[in-house]
Amino acid sequence: MKQAIVARTDIGMGTGKLAAQVAHASLKAYESAGPDARRQWKSGGQKKVVLKAGSEREVFDLAEQARREGLPHAVVRDAGHTQLDPGTVTTLAVGPAPEAMVDTVTGDLSLY
Amino acid sequence: MKQAIVARTDIGMGTGKLAAQVAHASLKAYESAGPDARRQWKSGGQKKVVLKAGSEREVFDLAEQARREGLPHAVVRDAGHTQLDPGTVTTLAVGPAPEAMVDTVTGDLSLY
Repeated sequence: MKQAIVARTDIGMGTGKLAAQVAHASLKAYESAGPDARRQWKSGGQKKVVLKAGSEREVFDLAEQARREGLPHAVVRDAGHTQLDPGTVTTLAVGPAPEAMVDTVTGDLSLY
Repeated sequence: MKQAIVARTDIGMGTGKLAAQVAHASLKAYESAGPDARRQWKSGGQKKVVLKAGSEREVFDLAEQARREGLPHAVVRDAGHTQLDPGTVTTLAVGPAPEAMVDTVTGDLSLY
């Protein structure tokens, strides 16, 4: 089991901002997963990988693939109080789900 | 309501690694919070701040303060599969809890 969190590289997020947005997406997708997936992922050490996407369009395409595969997923938009314009899409989390299923969506992306 | 996640600056974590460890701490502390704190935090947009700590000792001191204040909190150790030695303390999350209570523990730290 794993969760992949995809973060945009094209909007100039600072390190702390990025980490907060990754955490936001992670929790949101986790809460949309079923109890078995949650339990299995946690008992296996809640494996997470953080990956790069280059644009909003890429994030939406990946979210659509996750939806078609029936995987828990969540897109996060920033409230825009600080670094970004309100509503800016920042991150997408896919899973927790079996690794091979997550990889069908995010397997071609680079590690952040 | 907010959650503060404190990350060490002295162990050379890359950006993606840091974000994953922040997410790990965030979820772990969230799950140790009560249902009212969870609900209030989420309905308020799950505010998160990511802050800096300079050493393992500082992380443990902050965790001890959070414990004394009765705040939900979680320390994360890395499994050590990649960049870090196994068991390295990486992050601490405090909250979700009322902002003023979180600030009694982490209010003096710098934003990451």
